[in-house]
Amino acid sequence: MNIVPVDLGENSYNIFIARDLEKKLVEFCNKAHFSHRGIIITDTNVGPLYGDRLKKIVNDSGITVEAFQIPAGEGSKKLVFFEKIITRCIEMGLDRRSPMFALGGGVVGDIAGFAAASYMRGVPFIQVPTSLLAQVDSSVGGKVAVNHPLGKNLIGAFYQPQAVFMNLDWLKTLPEREIYTGLGEIIKYGIIYDKNFFSYLEDNSESILSLNNEAVEYITSRSCEIKAAVVGSDEREAGLRAILNFGHTMGHSVEKNTGYARYNHGEAVAIGMICAAYISMELGLIGENVFTRVESLIKKFHLPIKAEDCDVESLYSAIFHDKKTVDGRVKWILIDGDIGQVTIKDNVPEEVVRKAMKYCI
Amino acid sequence: MNIVPVDLGENSYNIFIARDLEKKLVEFCNKAHFSHRGIIITDTNVGPLYGDRLKKIVNDSGITVEAFQIPAGEGSKKLVFFEKIITRCIEMGLDRRSPMFALGGGVVGDIAGFAAASYMRGVPFIQVPTSLLAQVDSSVGGKVAVNHPLGKNLIGAFYQPQAVFMNLDWLKTLPEREIYTGLGEIIKYGIIYDKNFFSYLEDNSESILSLNNEAVEYITSRSCEIKAAVVGSDEREAGLRAILNFGHTMGHSVEKNTGYARYNHGEAVAIGMICAAYISMELGLIGENVFTRVESLIKKFHLPIKAEDCDVESLYSAIFHDKKTVDGRVKWILIDGDIGQVTIKDNVPEEVVRKAMKYCI
Repeated sequence: MNIVPVDLGENSYNIFIARDLEKKLVEFCNKAHFSHRGIIITDTNVGPLYGDRLKKIVNDSGITVEAFQIPAGEGSKKLVFFEKIITRCIEMGLDRRSPMFALGGGVVGDIAGFAAASYMRGVPFIQVPTSLLAQVDSSVGGKVAVNHPLGKNLIGAFYQPQAVFMNLDWLKTLPEREIYTGLGEIIKYGIIYDKNFFSYLEDNSESILSLNNEAVEYITSRSCEIKAAVVGSDEREAGLRAILNFGHTMGHSVEKNTGYARYNHGEAVAIGMICAAYISMELGLIGENVFTRVESLIKKFHLPIKAEDCDVESLYSAIFHDKKTVDGRVKWILIDGDIGQVTIKDNVPEEVVRKAMKYCI
Repeated sequence: MNIVPVDLGENSYNIFIARDLEKKLVEFCNKAHFSHRGIIITDTNVGPLYGDRLKKIVNDSGITVEAFQIPAGEGSKKLVFFEKIITRCIEMGLDRRSPMFALGGGVVGDIAGFAAASYMRGVPFIQVPTSLLAQVDSSVGGKVAVNHPLGKNLIGAFYQPQAVFMNLDWLKTLPEREIYTGLGEIIKYGIIYDKNFFSYLEDNSESILSLNNEAVEYITSRSCEIKAAVVGSDEREAGLRAILNFGHTMGHSVEKNTGYARYNHGEAVAIGMICAAYISMELGLIGENVFTRVESLIKKFHLPIKAEDCDVESLYSAIFHDKKTVDGRVKWILIDGDIGQVTIKDNVPEEVVRKAMKYCI
């Protein structure tokens, strides 16, 4: 088992990464002084697969839980389902020490996290991410939210889990496209933080794509370590944490312009990373060789490099609605010199941005 | 001007108490590095009275704001109005550094606070409480929430304002009943924390009830100081902060049993304080003289001491649904020895509780 600590002062917690987590989970629950009733939030995909198993584990530690399912998919990540979760918590008589488990991918983790943050002003929250994307990205760092009809993740909180449990065996039931999606964010960690990790991804793409145990364990652990290091230095996104947004400015714009339907998150971020790398190259921050390495690895992991059916005009206008944009200045995270280093610029000329966007459509 | 600091580490802030706050507010906004657009949340009672004035003050500091009104009354404190506020923020293009001002009583402060906590995972929040109850209670301490059809304040957060501005002149437009309601919580501060303050209230009831400037300034400032001291030692209600709940266990039960209509919050708490004082007396923690002092002061401030049309059975069953109740154990805050000292007990015998409730109906 790998244990990655996330160091956030009194909000610190551990990420447990392994193939068999039952004992660890029971041990954790026993130590945690929870109330004797809790709830598991899951969805209609993951619930039938792993809901009963998690329920049994938690029950074994003396906590009566029920699994509450929301419909699978991004469409459930909205205030009305958030309210349904809260209503169920009240009906079950859950109190302030009742644990809430999120069993599923990013949607489940995000909405359950916001419910855990808000029910009675906060109950203990435990992430059990089942998708690669959730494991390396959304389950770590405490960003929880629901969508608003006018934009994604606009209603939420910073709320840290008390622990994250990742069972890597569960990845084997994921559709291939979901694996690629997770790899998009994993590539990002190499680009923003660790040149050697990026090289590892280049050199081991085959064993990664075939979900070789050792390779998967290494890339999830290393990704969590990098995310933990960044988040640990800036919990509430005042400074450094913004680098995690590499590829996301254009990525969010692509998602918005394709109705959140054509590309999933990791795919949109892949296109966004090409855009950011292109801008970096245009500004002379990196040479063409670095740009090519980024583009090649993205292709190798079966991720898209072009946003089909998008136009520059709409892509450009959407970046001003990003949460990172303050007083109309868009913050671009750019590669600075070489893989592994980034810089933040809020004065990229419009024509450079448009040229990069044109390359990506 | 009195300035009461609330010491919460990096979440610290000041409470400004005066009769003319315009200069101070402009100065605060100028220093705060806010975005150039913000919003004032108010209601249909307070908006028409003071909305334009606050708008002008904020505009004068270079921030374009609009006043967004919700219907006055507890009925607005729900998720649907929370969502309306968020929608307006998005439509106005507010960003993470856009300030949100709450101008009004407890309902406005609570719902605006939860909106400020949640919009883009948190924007700067400034309380401008206009009722005595909000000034001495809900605007200080960071508890924000909306109600759920099944219970009050069940959806919320701990979210501290960046400052609290109280214009005591505004109290003069309050209906008398609203003044009495605020006095309910003010009596509470004397009971739980400061015997001399309690004596001051006994000795100066006339000048307080006639809203004598000096008296009002003293009792609001001292109440805020006490609340700040308690909250400062326990921001998230893990221990000491529970003493602020003196009178609230039964108070919430009275509110619930009268459909949140017959008694307002301070009135219900007044009855709840009698109940808690009665239990303290029954358990031998205080003598009859202390109980009588509590009851007399409550009467003097025109607050009710009996919950009309309530029965013990329903009052008793409702206390188990309180947020402070964990694993079915009700925590009673009781007077311990004399005015100014309290203790927390979760093992008060059922018959003692029922006897006290019977006294209060």
